Amino acid sequence: MIIDCHGHYTTAPPALEAWRARQIAALGDPAGAPRADELAIGDDELRASVADHQLAQMRARGCDLTIFSPRASFMAHHIGELQTSATWAAICNELLFRITRLFPDHFAGCAMLPQSPGVDPRTCIPELERCVVEYGFVAVNLNPDPSGGHWSAPPLTDRHWYPIYEKLVEHRIPAMIHASASCNPCFHTIGAHYLNADTTAFMQCLTGDLFRDFPSLKLVIPHGGGAVPFHWGRFRGLAQQLGKPVLREHLLDNLYFDTCVYHQAGIDLMARVVPVDNILFASEMIGAVRGIDPETGHHFDDTRRYIDAAPGLTAADRAKIYEANVRRVYPRLDEALAARGR
Amino acid sequence: MIIDCHGHYTTAPPALEAWRARQIAALGDPAGAPRADELAIGDDELRASVADHQLAQMRARGCDLTIFSPRASFMAHHIGELQTSATWAAICNELLFRITRLFPDHFAGCAMLPQSPGVDPRTCIPELERCVVEYGFVAVNLNPDPSGGHWSAPPLTDRHWYPIYEKLVEHRIPAMIHASASCNPCFHTIGAHYLNADTTAFMQCLTGDLFRDFPSLKLVIPHGGGAVPFHWGRFRGLAQQLGKPVLREHLLDNLYFDTCVYHQAGIDLMARVVPVDNILFASEMIGAVRGIDPETGHHFDDTRRYIDAAPGLTAADRAKIYEANVRRVYPRLDEALAARGR
Repeated sequence: MIIDCHGHYTTAPPALEAWRARQIAALGDPAGAPRADELAIGDDELRASVADHQLAQMRARGCDLTIFSPRASFMAHHIGELQTSATWAAICNELLFRITRLFPDHFAGCAMLPQSPGVDPRTCIPELERCVVEYGFVAVNLNPDPSGGHWSAPPLTDRHWYPIYEKLVEHRIPAMIHASASCNPCFHTIGAHYLNADTTAFMQCLTGDLFRDFPSLKLVIPHGGGAVPFHWGRFRGLAQQLGKPVLREHLLDNLYFDTCVYHQAGIDLMARVVPVDNILFASEMIGAVRGIDPETGHHFDDTRRYIDAAPGLTAADRAKIYEANVRRVYPRLDEALAARGR
Repeated sequence: MIIDCHGHYTTAPPALEAWRARQIAALGDPAGAPRADELAIGDDELRASVADHQLAQMRARGCDLTIFSPRASFMAHHIGELQTSATWAAICNELLFRITRLFPDHFAGCAMLPQSPGVDPRTCIPELERCVVEYGFVAVNLNPDPSGGHWSAPPLTDRHWYPIYEKLVEHRIPAMIHASASCNPCFHTIGAHYLNADTTAFMQCLTGDLFRDFPSLKLVIPHGGGAVPFHWGRFRGLAQQLGKPVLREHLLDNLYFDTCVYHQAGIDLMARVVPVDNILFASEMIGAVRGIDPETGHHFDDTRRYIDAAPGLTAADRAKIYEANVRRVYPRLDEALAARGR
């Protein structure tokens, strides 16, 4: 089967965005804030919002299942305070949960966390555990920069984040390190901030020793790892210069790269430098880049075509990228699939 | 001939760093600040600091001339205020000037600007003009984030920066968009901040219309363009989605990428997606990554080997990358070389 480890619910009914707009409008006036139960989206509406979009594309592209999370740019952890994020995350995760119940063969849940700038990440644990224990989610998205482009949180290797890692390890779920919207005018959200966050997260892990403390922790760097595979030699050289072990020993039992790289040459490079065991199929469809590439006549984000065409990959490599690696990195997904005979 | 468009004076005698340490130590106490003329480095010392290092490597690698600038991470524009940067830039540029006089066949100058967070870039113009008019420098380095990792300046497309661009155009010199040291613990300077700055600068140009206002402005994005070539499809797709012209029309008469990418697969990717007219030879030697790659037995930053071995390049392409493109983007260098019969 083919599993896409990186999809967001970008096609929610407009009522969701309207609720969020009311929440934001009431930031200075808690009494005016909308209640969570004022958002009413029926199952039919929810079903249609996915069936006509992500699911239709998955069928067209031959993708069986997507690990699905709330819309990344809408997490916007920089808005409001802890309670703002807590209510918003609870709403978004519950909608996701309903989608995974409506389409259990096609979507597995990945939680958004109620992060907030300057707030102890420990406050995310109740929502994390609800998503895993009650909703059966198989992963979380962790935002390395809840400030939205001001980078005021400590590096991911800092003990600040350890309470989250302890729970990830306890529940055997990976985190995708995924930034959210940039409120810094220097950074275009999907053209700069996301890619910078990917590169930054990798380098934080390279300079630190996080995986000595958490040998079973699995982190997924999206968007092909930002600049990392293109600069693989630079990172190998920096590891050597900093007295760290080679990348494979130092990081590659714990760090994985998805394939959200939207052209053939990029995927070919990844396949050439990143060990195949560390590559996970993903498209982020329907997401950042929605158009059709005039050079190919296909969607930019139809990444399966690039993987199928990459000259450096064997059939066995593709089977790893499309399924086996994802099931290894997301063991709760593997178990849920096995329980359904898949 | 072979011209390296990106080298920094990273091997200055220790007296330079000692002077800077005294300057920093006196930040709260202007009376205790060292005077510029307290720094004394003789010509012999200056000559040896380059001859035994950069020049020796250039000879070993067959590089004829390097466009040389003060050490990037030492610019540290975030330290102190305008006067701090003004004095420091003047010292560093003057040392560079002396090197270009000691080795006129091998080094051309690229100025550091006295940028300072929150200060009008107009204040950089006297130093810029001294470097071009008095010292004969052929380019400047422009730091898109003088705050050192807090990204508090407006995007490069903002009118804030226009006084600099007007001078660049007037004097027919390009700017390399080069960040300096990160004082934000999230960002490793050479493993994250520089690459992020490259990606960010490209995306700022993509979303803006800077080159409509400055059709003859030339900007060089170092380190191979950060994440850009690896995500060339993403950027092509974003340009389309944002209603911009295709990258070639929108940006590629004005933006250039250097070849500071430290492995064969990275250079092969660049050569495959970036038009050859937009690729400029560079190594940033002796710089960020100084070791020998155990996989090849050669220095990581010996980028000429990768260009010579890139299967997608013809001899004519290599001649452009090594010389013709650089002479076109740095016209004052071209004229200075022509005047010497080169």
